[in-house]
Amino acid sequence: MSFQEKVENYANLAVRVGVNIQKGQTLFVRAPLFAADFVRLVAKKAYEAGAKHVRVEWSDEELTKMKFELAPDEAFDEYPNWQAKALEEEADNNAAFLSITGGNPDLLKDADPDRVARANKAAGMALDTFRRYIQSDKVSWSIVAVPTVSWAEKVFPDAKGEEAVTKLWEAIFAATRINETDPVAAWKQHLATLDEKRNKLNEHHFHALHYKGKGTDLTIELPETHIWTSGGSTSNAGIDFVANMPTEEVFSAAKKDGVNGTVISTKPLNYGGTLITNFTLTFKNGKVVDFSAERGEETLKRLLDSDEGARYIGEVALVPHRSPISDTNLIFYNTLFDENASNHLALGSAYAFNIEGGKTMSPEELEKNGLNQSITHVDFMMGAADMDIDGVDKDGNRVPVFRNGDWAI
Amino acid sequence: MSFQEKVENYANLAVRVGVNIQKGQTLFVRAPLFAADFVRLVAKKAYEAGAKHVRVEWSDEELTKMKFELAPDEAFDEYPNWQAKALEEEADNNAAFLSITGGNPDLLKDADPDRVARANKAAGMALDTFRRYIQSDKVSWSIVAVPTVSWAEKVFPDAKGEEAVTKLWEAIFAATRINETDPVAAWKQHLATLDEKRNKLNEHHFHALHYKGKGTDLTIELPETHIWTSGGSTSNAGIDFVANMPTEEVFSAAKKDGVNGTVISTKPLNYGGTLITNFTLTFKNGKVVDFSAERGEETLKRLLDSDEGARYIGEVALVPHRSPISDTNLIFYNTLFDENASNHLALGSAYAFNIEGGKTMSPEELEKNGLNQSITHVDFMMGAADMDIDGVDKDGNRVPVFRNGDWAI
Ligand SMILES: [Zn+2]
Ligand SMILES: [Zn+2]
Ligand SMILES: [Zn+2]
Ligand SMILES: [Zn+2]
Repeated sequence: MSFQEKVENYANLAVRVGVNIQKGQTLFVRAPLFAADFVRLVAKKAYEAGAKHVRVEWSDEELTKMKFELAPDEAFDEYPNWQAKALEEEADNNAAFLSITGGNPDLLKDADPDRVARANKAAGMALDTFRRYIQSDKVSWSIVAVPTVSWAEKVFPDAKGEEAVTKLWEAIFAATRINETDPVAAWKQHLATLDEKRNKLNEHHFHALHYKGKGTDLTIELPETHIWTSGGSTSNAGIDFVANMPTEEVFSAAKKDGVNGTVISTKPLNYGGTLITNFTLTFKNGKVVDFSAERGEETLKRLLDSDEGARYIGEVALVPHRSPISDTNLIFYNTLFDENASNHLALGSAYAFNIEGGKTMSPEELEKNGLNQSITHVDFMMGAADMDIDGVDKDGNRVPVFRNGDWAI
Repeated sequence: MSFQEKVENYANLAVRVGVNIQKGQTLFVRAPLFAADFVRLVAKKAYEAGAKHVRVEWSDEELTKMKFELAPDEAFDEYPNWQAKALEEEADNNAAFLSITGGNPDLLKDADPDRVARANKAAGMALDTFRRYIQSDKVSWSIVAVPTVSWAEKVFPDAKGEEAVTKLWEAIFAATRINETDPVAAWKQHLATLDEKRNKLNEHHFHALHYKGKGTDLTIELPETHIWTSGGSTSNAGIDFVANMPTEEVFSAAKKDGVNGTVISTKPLNYGGTLITNFTLTFKNGKVVDFSAERGEETLKRLLDSDEGARYIGEVALVPHRSPISDTNLIFYNTLFDENASNHLALGSAYAFNIEGGKTMSPEELEKNGLNQSITHVDFMMGAADMDIDGVDKDGNRVPVFRNGDWAI
């Protein structure tokens, strides 16, 4: 397959499997300017699949960076109302949403962390309704990646410019099964495998998970009515979609006040353009009561201070240490890839669909059923090759769920 | 001055003189992707001048063209509500608006003219409120240009690629007085000269103008309370701005039912990506009752059929045949430049500020006072080197306003 064919297959996969665009539907793309060529490919595939509109909310890394450098202080507490309404209006009209990631992981490394935290908070608050739409699968949505030079050189420090970009594209193709003869079929089969693990976890219906690894000793209780889900989702309109490409995870919600112990991160976390590395979190009755980080501790502190819910765990995701992603042996410095090569947890809000009847519950009802609510949802990686996880029932009986970083169930 | 310095001066001029950005104000830029580098320069100048936010509504020529080719038919009657609201919300918050033009003049030449007309109409209707804001100087706004290869090769058919682009940049610099030692000062002086002509026309307060030129014999009555304005404007907040860069015009409104005779266009009109050339319009009591075009007649017909007001004249603009723009001896195939090198008229809505008290009148009141209302406003060029214009008072007395294409007043 030529490089161009692979890129086209990737665009096609995003449209057909990722958001699974339907005839007459609008595709709403959120993309950085550097991804323009890819966005045009996506648009072409979408129109060919019957999309009515392809609309793009473009962003520009250089303008973002410039703003943190040059704008006056009061700029960082504001997020335009119309920009939030745009997403809500398109969602209400049953649009599908595709986000494109892949920017410079160090974009905001020199920006004032206070400004970054305030901007993230303003966005989080403005996008509250839309985030709830996403987190209850109201609409179909997906995330794919397009490499920039800065990202590629971070992943491949020995390569330069276009050479690094090409290497990163190839890693993305490998991680997203684009090199298979029929990527769409390969994805269907992969999703079925994830569904099988999901079904087993749902049958066991554990009371808690106990994680043991170097630096990690953590117990996470699960809500009474929790549901495990996997990469494949279904929107309110009944359309199957895949929110993350790649996806290797089977995930559920934590019981908000049922997390105890200590966890250590095992991959760098890229949070809004700043990297946080080698950090530990200590939980008591669900809440982070202590933390430290080798790099980005100030950013981590601000993340934890976003709101009350930012100190609690929303999502619990199981990911084997071996997968096409981890077989690349790369740290991607991009959550879309790194979280799908590692067991991970998310600080912040839980997915409503991870408990019975959650999709139609109010925020208060979700909270009452043990699901954390927050303006933020940030996945961090804590899986490792030596990690063991036990499933624990109400009486304390244990079943191996993971052994040495891989599925044991 | 180096090329880069000139581009920076142009960006600076757009920010300082064009929209005249104020401390704490938001700059809202509407720009095509190809202008990204220039937009970043503009943003830098704007932040340096104290702007709080620089927000960009990006568009992409390739996606636009693709949509006309591939989207289903029903797509062309829809314009997103949120996109119109974005402009209104920013205007209500006193943002300044900068539009960047310069795309391929032939972008939509192969598109279905019915689709193009419907898309223009849907946009015109959705943007009605914002257009009223603009046409009553509620906010400060400006238009500048950034060349694409396709545009540059159209203007310079003997040059190719970057060579043509450089030539077009130099023509833009010449037309916008960027080559002067102090462009901002040169602009102030130029605007004062235009103001002088404007004042004379307001003192005369003609009942009508009578245009004579090869193929043109046209009488345009002016509203009882008409006001002549020139390039420099003032927003509701009291901020001076220059809506078009370049601008060479002194303009007012036509009396809706007071236009009679025939006019021939003297430069190609680029209407939404289609060129209309060598067209004539015949008016009776204000309305276009006959028309023909050498090229783009179907597009012209659809423009005239946009709504009832599209067959009436809104704006009457006087522009000398000699100016830095016409001294370039180029046809720009872009209204921003061509209209400022030629007497022109606009089909469609009139500017509310072109009659006394108009800024605060309702559409109905404006209409009652002789001002045409429409979802469209399209300038077309009809000036020529041989053109004479007389100002006529109520008793039929004549004063020379233009002789041989230049001011005589
Ligand atoms: Zn996850
Ligand atoms: Zn997550
Ligand atoms: Zn004009
Ligand atoms: Zn005009």
